[in-house]
Amino acid sequence: MEIEKLTVVALAGGVGGAKLVDGLARCLPAGQLTVIVNIGDDFEHLGLQICPDLDTVCYTLAGMANPATGWGLAGETFNALEHLAALGGPDWFRVGDRDLGTHLERTRRLNRGESLSQITRDFCKAWGIGITVLPASDDRVPTLVYTSEGEMPFQEYFVLHECRPIVKGFLFTENERAHPAPGTLQAIQQADIIVFCPSNPWVSLDPILAIPGIREAVRQRPVVAVSPIIAGKTVKGPAAKIFNELGSEPSACAVARHYRDILTGFVLDQMDYKQEGAIKALGIHTYRTDTIMHTRDDRCRLAKEVVEFAGSII
Amino acid sequence: MEIEKLTVVALAGGVGGAKLVDGLARCLPAGQLTVIVNIGDDFEHLGLQICPDLDTVCYTLAGMANPATGWGLAGETFNALEHLAALGGPDWFRVGDRDLGTHLERTRRLNRGESLSQITRDFCKAWGIGITVLPASDDRVPTLVYTSEGEMPFQEYFVLHECRPIVKGFLFTENERAHPAPGTLQAIQQADIIVFCPSNPWVSLDPILAIPGIREAVRQRPVVAVSPIIAGKTVKGPAAKIFNELGSEPSACAVARHYRDILTGFVLDQMDYKQEGAIKALGIHTYRTDTIMHTRDDRCRLAKEVVEFAGSII
Repeated sequence: MEIEKLTVVALAGGVGGAKLVDGLARCLPAGQLTVIVNIGDDFEHLGLQICPDLDTVCYTLAGMANPATGWGLAGETFNALEHLAALGGPDWFRVGDRDLGTHLERTRRLNRGESLSQITRDFCKAWGIGITVLPASDDRVPTLVYTSEGEMPFQEYFVLHECRPIVKGFLFTENERAHPAPGTLQAIQQADIIVFCPSNPWVSLDPILAIPGIREAVRQRPVVAVSPIIAGKTVKGPAAKIFNELGSEPSACAVARHYRDILTGFVLDQMDYKQEGAIKALGIHTYRTDTIMHTRDDRCRLAKEVVEFAGSII
Repeated sequence: MEIEKLTVVALAGGVGGAKLVDGLARCLPAGQLTVIVNIGDDFEHLGLQICPDLDTVCYTLAGMANPATGWGLAGETFNALEHLAALGGPDWFRVGDRDLGTHLERTRRLNRGESLSQITRDFCKAWGIGITVLPASDDRVPTLVYTSEGEMPFQEYFVLHECRPIVKGFLFTENERAHPAPGTLQAIQQADIIVFCPSNPWVSLDPILAIPGIREAVRQRPVVAVSPIIAGKTVKGPAAKIFNELGSEPSACAVARHYRDILTGFVLDQMDYKQEGAIKALGIHTYRTDTIMHTRDDRCRLAKEVVEFAGSII
């Protein structure tokens, strides 16, 4: 099948996921790509509803993301935060001025009773994003992290404590009561392939799959995952550390095993060639390539390879 | 009495009031000056509790105010607002990035149950302000403006509609249920003189006086008002327009009449010498000088003259 004719739904979390989504958006017609974004990291801070993964995906797709960090906006200023810090306010979450504009307007509209998916649709339009970006749910589904230092909301673990506490588990209580955002299940049901972006399995993709109906719908479709673990490490974020703390060695194979009941295919890095056999033994098709996305060209090249691979096994 | 020994309480609203307060702060020892600030203009916007007069007074005292506008911060950026406007959000209230830091931190602390007066005290300390700045109340007392285009909150009249609607009256309903902020009545009772800054009588000073207990306490003390009307006009703001719309010609004498049951003395501009007799006829002492404060030196000079005049009549 020609890849331009495939309809793709991507599940994505933070920076790595956003990069692959950007690649997919550049090699597929806009109408054939929907991205379902993790909202388990969302939290209220300074009275504002902040959606870090949704913003990272949208800023990246709009070409506005800070290339140095992957999150936040390019050329950002931090005048509000510095002024607030001088008053003794909390500045552990590095929110920039323009980014504040996003949170203020999103929060204003949420407080008027509008849904996160409607607001996201309008923001994407304003930012010139052609593909469909859906939050996994319009309900609030904060991920709770059980750690050696007690339980805490994800952003406190991730930013305030810089992932230092030892993870003992995660709780998605609210997810079980949540509903998929309008259009989510339909997009999955109509997709030729589902792509799991190279996002953290525990805290980026599991919270999406924990929303009733999504895992079941995804399992009905061919699913290809791109490993976020390369040579036992992550490019960014705590996925490898979490695998260790939860008792399994971080590896491409550990990621494949994490999703073994769902996956049709698995994309691993060239460096992990020794694990290919073990993954195949799980009954999963494999494809090896360079998966680190340094440049925007890397994103397109990887996205194309992922879709071609998926097209070859469905 | 030497003016350095006088204890002064100033009542102030916006830009003109803030300038005289700044002058007073420079000619009196810090422990002898308390300013009680109007909060009738306060409003909630973008989920933030904004206190325009309190901020104008504090920014001016801290030497951080924008010299071109009188309000807002010098060297301010508007990145958050521009970003929000690009998303279709409301940008009629020109909130700057650093100013946003003030509103975010104030709102965060109010939402934790802290009082506006406690927060203001801490902000003043952080900004190096030595004198005591008190909001008139810790309760919310929004001024409602009755106009030819219906009733509206003050900031909508003032900023969104740029004072165009014809004013028919004001409502201070909430004020009547409010309590003076802690320390307000004591400061008034212990003051040698009360100074009414050149602020709008209708919407800056009346809302303070409408809080139960404040007018009565003020009347027990010698009160000197500085006219906000010069040659029938205001330096800034709608006071003259409002006098006209409410049926009296705007003039220094009209201001004196507005407060006739309270005033001991009245400071009017040299240009208004023809009105001095009519004001004296109300049983009010008068003092004429140049009242327009172009420079910081003007503020000090006027403040000194006001206090010396007050000292001479008590």
